[in-house]
Amino acid sequence: MLKILLSNDDGVHSPGIHHLANYLKEIGSVTLVSPESERSASGLSITMHKPLRTKKVNFFDDSINAWCINGTPSDCVKFAIDSLLTETPDLVISGINHGSNLGTDILYSGTVSAAIEGAINDVPAIAVSLDTVGKCDFEPYAKLAAKLCKQLYENNIKKGIVMNINIPYIPIGEIKGVKVTKLGVRRYKNCFIERLDPRGKSYFWLAGELDNKDFNNFDTDVGSIYNNYISVTPITFDLTSYETITKMKKWNIANINDLQ
Amino acid sequence: MLKILLSNDDGVHSPGIHHLANYLKEIGSVTLVSPESERSASGLSITMHKPLRTKKVNFFDDSINAWCINGTPSDCVKFAIDSLLTETPDLVISGINHGSNLGTDILYSGTVSAAIEGAINDVPAIAVSLDTVGKCDFEPYAKLAAKLCKQLYENNIKKGIVMNINIPYIPIGEIKGVKVTKLGVRRYKNCFIERLDPRGKSYFWLAGELDNKDFNNFDTDVGSIYNNYISVTPITFDLTSYETITKMKKWNIANINDLQ
Repeated sequence: MLKILLSNDDGVHSPGIHHLANYLKEIGSVTLVSPESERSASGLSITMHKPLRTKKVNFFDDSINAWCINGTPSDCVKFAIDSLLTETPDLVISGINHGSNLGTDILYSGTVSAAIEGAINDVPAIAVSLDTVGKCDFEPYAKLAAKLCKQLYENNIKKGIVMNINIPYIPIGEIKGVKVTKLGVRRYKNCFIERLDPRGKSYFWLAGELDNKDFNNFDTDVGSIYNNYISVTPITFDLTSYETITKMKKWNIANINDLQ
Repeated sequence: MLKILLSNDDGVHSPGIHHLANYLKEIGSVTLVSPESERSASGLSITMHKPLRTKKVNFFDDSINAWCINGTPSDCVKFAIDSLLTETPDLVISGINHGSNLGTDILYSGTVSAAIEGAINDVPAIAVSLDTVGKCDFEPYAKLAAKLCKQLYENNIKKGIVMNINIPYIPIGEIKGVKVTKLGVRRYKNCFIERLDPRGKSYFWLAGELDNKDFNNFDTDVGSIYNNYISVTPITFDLTSYETITKMKKWNIANINDLQ
């Protein structure tokens, strides 16, 4: 039976992970290890300076072993694989996240980071996000996501690769299909808003308006979602720019005497 | 004059950033924006759920404008470029970090993340780390790092690329040269150590022994440092695995009817 490790960044109480767990148990045995509270925008941060505690949680049915941890999504997956699970999982799945994880934004995403942590540990991994900001019903998207995860797994996701799935929040019947995409570009302008506290001192909120240039670029995740397709973007954690290495061979930087 | 934005993840009080600032002011005008305290292993996390505050700091000489922020390294660079600086900097530099940032570990690195945030904002960026764990004197390495940063900048670092520099902590005269490298692989085993609190409840510390296979692979940053070379690794923030996209064209996943 397929051994699935499920995590997320919205925390163990989020409906996205509950609905996904319920459908994933139809395709495998599910162990859930998730942050005890929301950890959005945590990136691939890990907890080095405070101790981690784990707690068994019981609000799933008996077929799902579930724990929560006072750490980040990366902590959860690392801890589960290293210390909690008796066998290495076949697949790490993270989600369903409440909100998209597209383009450059995935670098900040706790959801994607949990999946990357799986890939770093040589376990095929999938991140799933639903492109919505308000209240939503995850149920039909969870059903669809579980089936898509199974399809992707059966096609042999290579070790070290994460499949980043984003689903448009429109009625299921209106979704046009699944596109294999690259990461698009997402930029924000006016990122910070200044406010004054009751003592007249200023503070700032991270905000920002989306300045999106890839809306109609179907090759990108951003364009696919905008045009009612599910996007699946394969991502790697090897950030080396090999193209730049080739160019740098001509640079004159190797001489240590020039630096003293 | 070269406009340099300097940040780090060890915090505004760390000696690494002080020494580097002192040498960088010889090659440009330096603005320093840094976390108010240590933020190691913060990855590319950003602060969305609490307000940010900035504070002017005065313990540099008058030629260096310096601020600290109650946020992550990414917050600092984002905020500086978006709201604090009147002109876009020519170069973002992060460091000198107390400890190496090599291989897979860079994904967790606040130092590298500050530089990546520069690259995301289209500013050429450099991260600098010194491979030491104990007490150390940053001064001679700061002098060398400032010169290397200048050399790299003058070779035209492409927008979107970060130069990740790691320097071995050995006497300067013993450093053999500078190598252009790819990211190596760093793995850890026995990642978590269990302890009992005074009430008999268990908690865990992230630890882990390095299980390093790239010590003698000179093409990698890990191997270069181990063999007394400075490593310069060009990294990108586009995590798309283009190789996998090509393979996925043959996968049977595009049919939405199979998913309902």
